[in-house]
Parts: sequence; C-alpha cells; structure tokens
Amino acid sequence: MINSDRLLHNLRRLRSFGQSGNGVVRRCLSAVDMESRQWLVKRMQEAGLDACIDGIANVIGVSANPGKALLLGSHSDTQPTGGWLDGALGVIYAIEVAQALGEHSHTRHLAVDVASWADEESHYLGLMGSRSFCDELSEAEIDTACNNDGHRLRAALAAHELDRSPRLHLEPDRYLGYIEAHIEQGPWLEMEQLRIGVVTSIVGMKDLSLSFRGQQNHAGTTPMRLRRDAAMALFEFAQQLNQAFSQIRGEHSVWTIGQLQLTPNARSIVPGLAEANLQFRDPDQARVEAMSACAFALVDEFNLDRGVQANIGIHDESARAVDMDTGIQAALANAAEHCAAGAWRHMPSGAAHDAQVLARHMPAGMLFIPSIGGVSHDFSEDSHEADIVLGCEVLAQAAIELLIGNRHV
Amino acid sequence: MINSDRLLHNLRRLRSFGQSGNGVVRRCLSAVDMESRQWLVKRMQEAGLDACIDGIANVIGVSANPGKALLLGSHSDTQPTGGWLDGALGVIYAIEVAQALGEHSHTRHLAVDVASWADEESHYLGLMGSRSFCDELSEAEIDTACNNDGHRLRAALAAHELDRSPRLHLEPDRYLGYIEAHIEQGPWLEMEQLRIGVVTSIVGMKDLSLSFRGQQNHAGTTPMRLRRDAAMALFEFAQQLNQAFSQIRGEHSVWTIGQLQLTPNARSIVPGLAEANLQFRDPDQARVEAMSACAFALVDEFNLDRGVQANIGIHDESARAVDMDTGIQAALANAAEHCAAGAWRHMPSGAAHDAQVLARHMPAGMLFIPSIGGVSHDFSEDSHEADIVLGCEVLAQAAIELLIGNRHV
Repeated sequence: MINSDRLLHNLRRLRSFGQSGNGVVRRCLSAVDMESRQWLVKRMQEAGLDACIDGIANVIGVSANPGKALLLGSHSDTQPTGGWLDGALGVIYAIEVAQALGEHSHTRHLAVDVASWADEESHYLGLMGSRSFCDELSEAEIDTACNNDGHRLRAALAAHELDRSPRLHLEPDRYLGYIEAHIEQGPWLEMEQLRIGVVTSIVGMKDLSLSFRGQQNHAGTTPMRLRRDAAMALFEFAQQLNQAFSQIRGEHSVWTIGQLQLTPNARSIVPGLAEANLQFRDPDQARVEAMSACAFALVDEFNLDRGVQANIGIHDESARAVDMDTGIQAALANAAEHCAAGAWRHMPSGAAHDAQVLARHMPAGMLFIPSIGGVSHDFSEDSHEADIVLGCEVLAQAAIELLIGNRHV
Repeated sequence: MINSDRLLHNLRRLRSFGQSGNGVVRRCLSAVDMESRQWLVKRMQEAGLDACIDGIANVIGVSANPGKALLLGSHSDTQPTGGWLDGALGVIYAIEVAQALGEHSHTRHLAVDVASWADEESHYLGLMGSRSFCDELSEAEIDTACNNDGHRLRAALAAHELDRSPRLHLEPDRYLGYIEAHIEQGPWLEMEQLRIGVVTSIVGMKDLSLSFRGQQNHAGTTPMRLRRDAAMALFEFAQQLNQAFSQIRGEHSVWTIGQLQLTPNARSIVPGLAEANLQFRDPDQARVEAMSACAFALVDEFNLDRGVQANIGIHDESARAVDMDTGIQAALANAAEHCAAGAWRHMPSGAAHDAQVLARHMPAGMLFIPSIGGVSHDFSEDSHEADIVLGCEVLAQAAIELLIGNRHV
C-alpha cells in the first residue's frame, strides 16, 4: 500500500534539517526547525491536504474528504542531541499514509488529517502543540514560558511571525481517533526479536524535587558526630527509597534520581545543601500515586530524628497514565498480525507522548517499531530500514480498517 | 607584655585590605593582597625587623639580634569568602610579639623572625610560601601552576615584579623552632568553654577521586533490571564506605564527600557517570593509610558483581600527619596555664597549616583560640576580642620561655 522509497526519502530529507552525524539538532522554533516545518507544509500539500503552520508552530494538514476523519501524527522537534527518527518517524508515516490512501481507488475517499505537534521535547513547554490543539494550553502559560537560555516563547513565536497566525483547535466530532507511531526508545522489542509494539497505555509520571538542608562546615575540623552533612543524608534517603519502592513496585515501575546538586560542592567543605529530583513512572496511575505517597511518607519519617531537614515537593505531575483505546489497539493488532504474523506484542509506553494529551479528547492509540540497542535521545539512535517500512504499512492498514469500519471504533 | 590596642588596631587595619562585610576577600597575589604585603613589610620594620617580600610573595622579617631565633608566622591570604582572622591572626600576633619583646629590657636581646607565608589557601599552590621557604617547591611546579581562572602563577608573580626578587630559604641552624597561632576553625574550644588550644598534631589528609561509570539511558523506557545507574551505584557505595570507615575510625577521624557531579545530570535520563571526591583525615598517618586501603578494597569488592564500573584514584595526598614538638607544646601549655589557668587543652588540628611543612624542618608548634560557632572560611567567622588578646599574650610568654631557655628545646 505505502510507497517505501518515498517514505525513506522523506525521512532522510527531514533529517537534513539540523543533521549532526547520524542524528539531528532541531529544537522547537529554531531557524532549522521552522525551515523543516515549511517543508512539512509542502509535503502535506503534496499528499492532498490543506496545510499550514498555526500560531503555536503546529503543522496541521486537513483532508477535504467528507465523513469522520482519522488524525495521524507525532512531533518533528528534537532533543539537544536528537535521534533522526524519534517523533519524525510518526510525522512522515502520517504524511505517507495520507498520500498513499489518496493514490488508491478504494481508499481515496477516506479522510486522514496529519499533525506535527510543536515542542513535544519541552524546549519551551512540554507537549505544547498537542495541548494547544486540545485547548489545554492557556495564553498565560505561553506568556511566562522561557527556554533554558531565558529566551521567551512569545519572542520566539514573534520572530517567526507566528504571532500573526491563529492557534488551531480540535474541531468537535470531526475525529474518530488519533494514532501516533514512534520508535520504542526501549529495549523490549529488540530483546524479544519482535517488530511491532501495540501500545496498551502510556505511563503516568511524577517528578518530585528533594532537598536536604544541613550545615555547611569545614571538612577537617568538624567532628563526625556534630556534622549535619546534607550529601550523606541524601545518600541514605536514596537507599531507603530504593528499599521502599522495591516493596510496592509493579512489573513496569521505574524510578530515577537523574539530577543532583551539592552546595557549595567543594572538596574540603561538608555540604550544607543537597538537591535532587526523583522521577517515577508506572502504567497504572494508582501506583504512581502510591509511589508518590510513599516518597512523601519517607521524608516525614526521615525528618523525625536527625539534624538534616529533608523537603519534598512536586516539580511535574502533568503526565497522568492513560490507557490506549481498545478499538484502535485491535485495529493495530490486526494489521500487525497481517503484516508480521507473530512478530508483535502489546506493551506499555514508558515515555511520554503527545498521544497522552489527545487520549483525553478522543480514542487514541500508538504503534512502536524497535529501537536498535534501545537507544534514544542520542545521535546514535536508529532502527532497521525493514522495520521502518513495516511500521508504516501496519499504520496504513490499521487506518483503513478504522476508517472503513469506523462505526466500530 | 603585649600591646593589646596595637594588636587589635593592626588586625582591623589588615582586614581593610579586601574587606567585605565582617570578612575579607584577599586571594594570594591579587592587587589588594600585594598592598597588604607592602603594609606588612612596614609593620615588620616598625617591629625592628629587616623585612621584604621575596620572590614567591612571602613577607619575611628577620631580627638582627644574635643567637638562635624563634620563627613566628602564619598566612594573610584568604579563601574566596574569607574570615577576617583565620591566618591573619597569626601574622599580626607574630609582629606584635616581635615588637613587644623589643620594647622590654629583659627581652630586647631575643631574636624573633616573622613570616606571612604566601598562598596557604591554595589559590595557585597550597602551602606555597612555606614549601618554598623550606626548599620543597620546585621551579617546575611554579612553571605549571595556574589558578581556577587559568591565570598562570608565573604571570601573577611577574605582574607584581616578584620575578626580580630571589626566593628566601631556611637558613640552616638559625631557628630553634616555629610557632603558628590560628583560629581553631572548629567547635571544640567553644563547646568546652576553653580559651586556648595547644596543638598536639596536625592531621594527615588524603583526597581521593571516585568515579562510577554505567550506561546513560532514558529514565522512562529503561527497565530497572537492565539499568546500569551510576548515581544509584554511588549512593550504595557511600553507604558501604560509611559502614566500613565506622569500623576502623579513631576518635578524631573525619571523612567527607563534598563534591559530586552526575552526567548528564538531567531529570529524565538515567545517569551514565557519577564522579565524586572522598576526603578523609586523621591525626595518625597510619590510620590515614588504613582508611585509604579500605576505600581501595571497597572499590575492588564493589566491582565484582555489577554493571557499573567503579574507579578510585589519588587526587591529593600531600598533607601527611605530623606531631607538634613536645618542647614547644610544653612552653605553650605553661604559658596558657599562667595566663588562663584551667581554660586550655591539648588538641589535634583537623585543618592543614603551614606548620605542617615547617615541622618537617624544625621543631614546630601551634596555638589555637576559639572560633565563635566553630565557623571559618566564611565572612561571618569571628572570635571574641578577649580571646584574641589572650592568645597573643600566651604566644609571647611561650616565645620568651623558649628563647631564654632555648637549650631545653
């Protein structure tokens, strides 16, 4: 059904915007990101869609065909050291499916819309484009958003004259659902020698801020029994947390302390302050909440009997666990079994995706293809060409089933 | 014996070079540090000494009196957030004792030399001035030394025209000993309501570098059992180290992880690298060596069964434990008992001092006065005026005993 040469050609052409080695640097609203969005508008137009860049930098292509439409998409912005596929895969898949369906007589009448959501990767605001489209993004949030360099989102939008364009929003009752294809970004499919993942749920995530405040002091003259060492307190807390989380974890639970800062961070000074984050995820939102309650309780317990004061707060709890629509899962599973019998599985998504936002507003589903070595957010990220082509074919077949039999969704 | 008004006036005048609030910023070889050294030369000349700044920025004043001399001194450079007393106290004490002895008929004939050692605080090279004076500093070491801004020591010396002056070295057989007075920089004297500390030994110190190399990965999609989390490895190692050191520690042992860096240090990424220092000190050099051996053995054991590779190396082991001379301790103890009966104690020094270097070349001793709240290397560092005056009187009395009865040392 799909044109695999065109698919691969377009993926490689999209990589050329910001290419660095095998990877890409294409932060949202950078010059090269805007060039790629203008190129995406042309590709969507070639696929027969009415396409534009909206006021938040979403690229949206709309089909003129009548009837309920299927919305396909992902994001084309990248991390600072981005892989060439990541979300770009799902955007080019979406364009290819819209174009391929338009080229065949029995599917020419079907309505497929395409989106490349702005700033999924949180350069200014995480999941910005999909939240804007779903009316979950306020003007006030846009007013205050800055990137890590302190550059304001409003200024970046104005620099590209996007302040003159309206933000496009979801048209009620237009869509029978949303499907996003993405690389897995994990090791499971490759480890099990499978080629397609049908996503059952996207994990919920909380990111908490921890701080341990003790007393900064001379590392030579301060006796051990008088110390209020913030770093040692953090090390001990992390061990207690590991034990406690091991008791309540599920099969897919993960937790990470990825960021840490000691103050003053000097070799000869007992640290007076240790700050860290604690991020955890689970496909079951109830377990996410239980892990959060456990961390808060551990902090209370920790503070009962020592000179270091632990504090805990919520940094980000915007990503709630959501289940993917069972109808869309079934269509993806049918298509996967048709194209790659026995070489697919159901699985949760451990990473956040725009589909998490869309799922609050319409039936939503996701499709994964294997990541070589499980690597993502790195220039070395890659997938096998045969898997790239297969994934797009599965998406096309599932789209057709959903659109032709849309009363069943 | 001493002139307490002159002592306090000179201490406050020295603070004015680089004063910031109650504290001082006077990094070695800064403009303000050089101004203070020129002022110190004049003060030493007023005290009757032949004084100059030598080729490494030591200020040295030499007595013309015959016979064995006593060398008194400390350092007048400061940390980036320096206290106003710290080493400045010992330098001004030394000048006051030399001047006061010259003003009394029964002590006028005694030879007291005075030194302000350059860069005790390691802006370019730790204990630089005392090591130069004791012939422990090579030209090659001076050639390669830079400060944290990358500014070369040679350039800094040349900027102040010190490259035209010779470095002064210890004259063999001139000295019967060296005494350094300093603030305690710790809490013991204040906690025990004592006013003078007679130092028994200066602790040995090792500073080791630790690294834990795992695998950087996505914090959402990497299952716990496949992780090679460098931060978690460090936390666990720190706990094991605490337990092991608690088994072999002595009364005065201390250990600190004061500096720590995760890579990439991002909230959503499993850290691939964790680097930290481990510094420990003990008055007994044998225990310092035992702690070092224990840390190395723990790393070997840690590497037996996991996916994170720990490495350990020596960053700095230059400060070996030294005992203070018992004759000088006795003279200081006699003077302390005479001036403040019952309000003094023997104690080790947990911090490094120039006396550690001098002690390898002549009998050496140290005298502490209490630090308010045990604070040092901070603008808020302070000592009570009565303790400042008492300390100088004790130093003067001990100097007289040593110089008049010098055959007993």
